Amino acid sequence: MNFPERVQINEVVLRDGLQLEAKIVPLEEKKELYDLLVKSNIKTLEFGSFVHPKLVPQMANSGELFAAVAAETQRPALIALIPNLKGAENAQSHGVSQLNFVFSASDTHNQQNVRKNTEESLNELKTILEFCNSHGIMLNVSIATTFGCPFEGEVPVERIQNLVRRLAEMEIDTITLADTTGMANPKQVYGLLTMLRNEFPSQKFNLHFHNTRGMGLSNILASLQAGIDSFDTSLGGLGGCPFAPGATGNVCTEDVVHMLHNMGIETGLSLEGLLKASAALEKIVEHRTPSYLLKAGPSDRKYPVPSN
Amino acid sequence: MNFPERVQINEVVLRDGLQLEAKIVPLEEKKELYDLLVKSNIKTLEFGSFVHPKLVPQMANSGELFAAVAAETQRPALIALIPNLKGAENAQSHGVSQLNFVFSASDTHNQQNVRKNTEESLNELKTILEFCNSHGIMLNVSIATTFGCPFEGEVPVERIQNLVRRLAEMEIDTITLADTTGMANPKQVYGLLTMLRNEFPSQKFNLHFHNTRGMGLSNILASLQAGIDSFDTSLGGLGGCPFAPGATGNVCTEDVVHMLHNMGIETGLSLEGLLKASAALEKIVEHRTPSYLLKAGPSDRKYPVPSN
Repeated sequence: MNFPERVQINEVVLRDGLQLEAKIVPLEEKKELYDLLVKSNIKTLEFGSFVHPKLVPQMANSGELFAAVAAETQRPALIALIPNLKGAENAQSHGVSQLNFVFSASDTHNQQNVRKNTEESLNELKTILEFCNSHGIMLNVSIATTFGCPFEGEVPVERIQNLVRRLAEMEIDTITLADTTGMANPKQVYGLLTMLRNEFPSQKFNLHFHNTRGMGLSNILASLQAGIDSFDTSLGGLGGCPFAPGATGNVCTEDVVHMLHNMGIETGLSLEGLLKASAALEKIVEHRTPSYLLKAGPSDRKYPVPSN
Repeated sequence: MNFPERVQINEVVLRDGLQLEAKIVPLEEKKELYDLLVKSNIKTLEFGSFVHPKLVPQMANSGELFAAVAAETQRPALIALIPNLKGAENAQSHGVSQLNFVFSASDTHNQQNVRKNTEESLNELKTILEFCNSHGIMLNVSIATTFGCPFEGEVPVERIQNLVRRLAEMEIDTITLADTTGMANPKQVYGLLTMLRNEFPSQKFNLHFHNTRGMGLSNILASLQAGIDSFDTSLGGLGGCPFAPGATGNVCTEDVVHMLHNMGIETGLSLEGLLKASAALEKIVEHRTPSYLLKAGPSDRKYPVPSN
């Protein structure tokens, strides 16, 4: 078993984590979470998205959040998700300099998300890329439903291969492969990633797993073995799947970091700090989260011997 | 990534799953669960334990459950857990012919469980083995806290190696290595199992993971890569850890089987049947279980496209 020595964690709780919450988290509570994440040494943070506020009211204060923290020295890289050119323009008008464009590998899922098929989103990406280049904005791209579509089922490997090829030709710095509804299994993950890394050896990949069916950490383990060293995770495992009520969301930051540290893989993060942030998160969203570590504590915690 | 083609699942919900439940599940409900498990094609089943009924009242009807189902044709192998010779004698008096003796690799944990140190339990094992041999009982052995002790912390690899050597010398058919409180990580699991399989190539091993810190399926993935093809799992992920209130218990049967099937690994089990049994389990124990599959459904489930 070979693993990278160091892994980069991209925290997405402020975006993917909060976007399906019943409560619209106000600016000051997002700022509280942000501060706790920064204290845990988070270095890349997806802080929100620029989408229509009627569609995702939870993200409507993303511009304000950016304004509140952008001037801080030694702040993490602040990334905003955008689904279209309008989102890019809106983000740029707020001074955001790092964007993540998301589209889906399956037409049906993309239609549901942005009322375009995959090809139409790729065409829009070309325009967005020109816009970003002319405004000094760094643009990364996420391919949703890479490992399966909740409407169409299996997504052919050739389709992913072809999409990655076209993104690589556009010189996209980092491509995120997203298991949007938690359908991936470790064998599939290892197979796809090994193939893509062979075909595109200089392309940077980031992986985004959901834990909908409990396979999130296993899929990370398989990715590590395929040489992947960058993952999206969400504090408390917050996030969700609109199609499976009650199902778990993104892989949980503190659970991932705990596993990595126990395996001797560095992240640069403070697990103790993350657990504090995760406890605060439960108060903010007003419900328990799927975090394992918050309930059980780290495995090096020793219990007092009962005196009976 | 190499995996076995077929994996054996040993269902432990009737023992490890129910033994910490607040509700003492009556015989007829245990029988209902048993029937649903048999319909799912479960072939090995730990159905209870023979321990002092004051210590574990949840298991007091284990003998009755055995009596109710023992005569069935084509029934699964029915295994009872025992902590000592008295348990073996009690089980034998009920006609049980397959036993699982459990002791802990760490002295402190063994003292807590059975008021003996590890060496004293190993001595008792010799007597139990003679008893079993003279009564035609098959005896397997589980080593608890193999991957760590909640009181002592790390358990030295040499200690496990030495225990396995002594069990192998006693010609124990199958040795179960148990991660009793969910402390194992995949790197540790792969390392230990590779070493033990090299040193004891003809010894059968079974693995027992808890999902206390979310690493259960990852540890199974690591075990598969080390060539292990037999696992204890608990329907609904039921089970617990007396030291971490609210923490998750054993790895969940249906979640494990779903991952294995998706990876092309056979189990012989019906996932659909297990999900029915898991739904019944929630009614019996009167609370939700940690099962992912019961909430999200299998990953090949396709959702209707919304008409908006």
